[in-house]
Amino acid sequence: MSFAEIHFLSDSLKQGVSAAVFMPEKGPFGSDAEPPYRTVYLLPGYSGDYPSIYTMLGIRKQAELKGLVVVIPNGQNAFYIDHPERNANYSKFIGEELIARTRDMFRISDKREDTYIAGISMGGYGALLNGLRYHDVFSKVAAFSPATNPFTLMEYPERGGFGAGEFANMFSSKDEYENSEWNIVKGYKEADKADIPELFIGCGDKDIAVDSQVKEFRQTLEDAGVPYKYFGTTGNHDFDTWEKMLDPAFSFLAGIPEGSRNRLAIPDMEI
Amino acid sequence: MSFAEIHFLSDSLKQGVSAAVFMPEKGPFGSDAEPPYRTVYLLPGYSGDYPSIYTMLGIRKQAELKGLVVVIPNGQNAFYIDHPERNANYSKFIGEELIARTRDMFRISDKREDTYIAGISMGGYGALLNGLRYHDVFSKVAAFSPATNPFTLMEYPERGGFGAGEFANMFSSKDEYENSEWNIVKGYKEADKADIPELFIGCGDKDIAVDSQVKEFRQTLEDAGVPYKYFGTTGNHDFDTWEKMLDPAFSFLAGIPEGSRNRLAIPDMEI
Amino acid sequence: MSFAEIHFLSDSLKQGVSAAVFMPEKGPFGSDAEPPYRTVYLLPGYSGDYPSIYTMLGIRKQAELKGLVVVIPNGQNAFYIDHPERNANYSKFIGEELIARTRDMFRISDKREDTYIAGISMGGYGALLNGLRYHDVFSKVAAFSPATNPFTLMEYPERGGFGAGEFANMFSSKDEYENSEWNIVKGYKEADKADIPELFIGCGDKDIAVDSQVKEFRQTLEDAGVPYKYFGTTGNHDFDTWEKMLDPAFSFLAGIPEGSRNRLAIPDMEI
Amino acid sequence: MSFAEIHFLSDSLKQGVSAAVFMPEKGPFGSDAEPPYRTVYLLPGYSGDYPSIYTMLGIRKQAELKGLVVVIPNGQNAFYIDHPERNANYSKFIGEELIARTRDMFRISDKREDTYIAGISMGGYGALLNGLRYHDVFSKVAAFSPATNPFTLMEYPERGGFGAGEFANMFSSKDEYENSEWNIVKGYKEADKADIPELFIGCGDKDIAVDSQVKEFRQTLEDAGVPYKYFGTTGNHDFDTWEKMLDPAFSFLAGIPEGSRNRLAIPDMEI
Repeated sequence: MSFAEIHFLSDSLKQGVSAAVFMPEKGPFGSDAEPPYRTVYLLPGYSGDYPSIYTMLGIRKQAELKGLVVVIPNGQNAFYIDHPERNANYSKFIGEELIARTRDMFRISDKREDTYIAGISMGGYGALLNGLRYHDVFSKVAAFSPATNPFTLMEYPERGGFGAGEFANMFSSKDEYENSEWNIVKGYKEADKADIPELFIGCGDKDIAVDSQVKEFRQTLEDAGVPYKYFGTTGNHDFDTWEKMLDPAFSFLAGIPEGSRNRLAIPDMEI
Repeated sequence: MSFAEIHFLSDSLKQGVSAAVFMPEKGPFGSDAEPPYRTVYLLPGYSGDYPSIYTMLGIRKQAELKGLVVVIPNGQNAFYIDHPERNANYSKFIGEELIARTRDMFRISDKREDTYIAGISMGGYGALLNGLRYHDVFSKVAAFSPATNPFTLMEYPERGGFGAGEFANMFSSKDEYENSEWNIVKGYKEADKADIPELFIGCGDKDIAVDSQVKEFRQTLEDAGVPYKYFGTTGNHDFDTWEKMLDPAFSFLAGIPEGSRNRLAIPDMEI
Repeated sequence: MSFAEIHFLSDSLKQGVSAAVFMPEKGPFGSDAEPPYRTVYLLPGYSGDYPSIYTMLGIRKQAELKGLVVVIPNGQNAFYIDHPERNANYSKFIGEELIARTRDMFRISDKREDTYIAGISMGGYGALLNGLRYHDVFSKVAAFSPATNPFTLMEYPERGGFGAGEFANMFSSKDEYENSEWNIVKGYKEADKADIPELFIGCGDKDIAVDSQVKEFRQTLEDAGVPYKYFGTTGNHDFDTWEKMLDPAFSFLAGIPEGSRNRLAIPDMEI
Repeated sequence: MSFAEIHFLSDSLKQGVSAAVFMPEKGPFGSDAEPPYRTVYLLPGYSGDYPSIYTMLGIRKQAELKGLVVVIPNGQNAFYIDHPERNANYSKFIGEELIARTRDMFRISDKREDTYIAGISMGGYGALLNGLRYHDVFSKVAAFSPATNPFTLMEYPERGGFGAGEFANMFSSKDEYENSEWNIVKGYKEADKADIPELFIGCGDKDIAVDSQVKEFRQTLEDAGVPYKYFGTTGNHDFDTWEKMLDPAFSFLAGIPEGSRNRLAIPDMEI
């Protein structure tokens, strides 16, 4: 596996940023992937960062076995939205700048059919949001326990550390939020179905942080006749649960059957 | 030289954070430093981050020759101030949490006389601010071209990328800023002189970003009878200028004469 | 979790070296560990390096849940033995220098009862070898599919990439190897039992690389009346198998029952 | 600046390896470089590694200002030569595998006219050696205080830490070395002049480690009518001296006049 940590100056955020990049390697676990590589941009959740993601989850294994490049930026708890008046354009950063910079640096594909976005929790919200905003860039979205409604996330303080002051700073008032471009429930309801990327949503059955949000979002999709792949599993809003979602989500992105390429094992031999 | 990159979950910022840590090494350039090590916390400026700082400036050389541990966190353009309502407590992060975490991880000294804070531009503001707020933690402050008055920084757009929307989000209105704990001109004017750490200020003679601010700040110190060491040099608000400030600033922190320990050269020998 | 990458100049190897260091973090997964921390030195196998180990295996999860510091150096395919005439003293590097340097840098315990060594494959050999050579430093050894007999490893070319030329460069002839201090079968047979650290050995039931070696080594221990904990599992000489050994091995090192602290899950709650 | 650390499994060395990669960034210091980028492979010296190189020398500044990608691998004190019987093929690693892998990963040029090799001390030997062996890959060589004659380097123990045992393990006997493909004095003397890349050699006037070697090598080139650019400066075999060679060497590689692009300073402005 080739594994890189990159650092560059972001114009959208006016600060130096860092990210992890995993590239498949022709080797014993032999993905056949060749450049230009298919790529998924995987967004961390609230309180997350890229070192946590790749040390807590088997991301490298997925990249290697599924033959995908995986790029993991930092979200800095900013919900992947734009605040141009503050030089904090996280949506633009994800959908335009990070894409352009990584394509400038690495031999990754610039085709929509080869470019995907994924995310965990707040990152799942960010993936659904920017997957739709930049639907001409991304062909697939994989959302792990997405916080599809930040207002709901905030309302119940025991759910995450995201509270009223942070919501206000991020989204203003409830009304403004609901009428804004950051309201993805509304966004997906009103979108032209032809614009919506292929969707994968995973969630644990005891997820105290986002369960009601995911139910609401799924209902919205169904009412609008938007197809999506759902992976329900046991578990709460934690890494053990997201580990279980890895193969289903990455198989979805790679376009292969679940479980068909998920073993690092070298073949058994008679001794 | 021992050089580390650390990643940990910050409670003050509610997100994963990263930092660089340089530790002196008993070796050919032979600092005699022994644990527990004297330590300087060096704050990046607006748009900066720790990878930029240590790849653009000879920080490692300073750490090694002066026998100091240097810790470089990221500032994320947040001026090192607290916004508790948003879980963005950068002052507390610097003055309390980063100190506690690094002392928990590394064999660095917990004595005030061994603990220093420094910074560049916005980081210079952050160092002066938190050096005073946490004067019981830090005994010395070294400010490289400090942006001592964020309002002035914002007023003239060609000076940095920091504009009105960002100022408002950070400091509210001009009046609120001027009356707040974040106004270091006021802070240093009103402080008990016994509380103020030893001060070093460096600035280039053609610094278009902070020249008037530094003049104002120096005048404030002089009017209040607060001593400080000043290093004026040629240059603008850039890395070439800050490189020239390294030995003066680190010699000040280490308590040795300028130039006395600034050569990596092995001794010449007759051939 | 605190996670660091360190770089320093090694005197035993006369070159700059790098390592990964994971430190437990008081947090949601709440290890109660306090400094000075208990520490395990985990040695990579042939062709391995520390980035592979921590991206392919859930090492961070183990460090966090078991409350141990984990240090992972690079082995550079050198079997963790000494070649003083070539400035390649990998045994001394592991047993003396890495210990001293990490204790100099980090707040880790210097007690034998708190210091452990582990390794995978060639690293398992290195852990058994140096656990015994430096039995005054290490109180426990955890060997994952150890290559306990490098001569056997070499003899059958399809087992690993380690061949005759490399064996000769590393160990000289078969006779010299068998009579040397690097022959751990002989070493453990002849050792004073009181000197031998507590031992854990794990192996897969279809391990084509080291199965006969592990059988030989276990027999040697049994014949010499040396107790050891054995964890047999399904699988070959690969990461999927070593992932299964993590909790048993780290529970052994931490002195807790297997499975008692192996869940990152936050508690379920009624919704 | 984009700065990456990469890790991948090397087939030539049968181990995981790491390297630093600096990429020019369109920004305030505005290199105009566009992909596919011109690239220099910069080899560390004896006892060196890539973290030392980029923290001790202003490499990033050079990459940015000259518009070049700089790749810095580790040399592991192996003189960049091949030992196929030991799976330690460092020459092949540099001239074939690292080239292929970086071209697979990054958008760097695959043209000879855009590909260069450089090195410091033992790395200077490695650059001259592999620049000639792989003259179809590299169009320019920049050697900083090159150890052009490892036998001489070994002969005088106070020069470096490289001794007789290491020489023997690396090069066998003096005679075998002198008649081997690793003898670059012989290699450059006998080479077809049309094959030799453009050469740059820098050396300090009091370099106790390699002065006689460099004199011998220069004489060899002159006797053979091979042109080369020489940069003599003050200093010994140390980083302060190599820092002085950076602009001359990188200007040579970039094909621009010395000093023409060596300032990070933003332009002065009237205040």
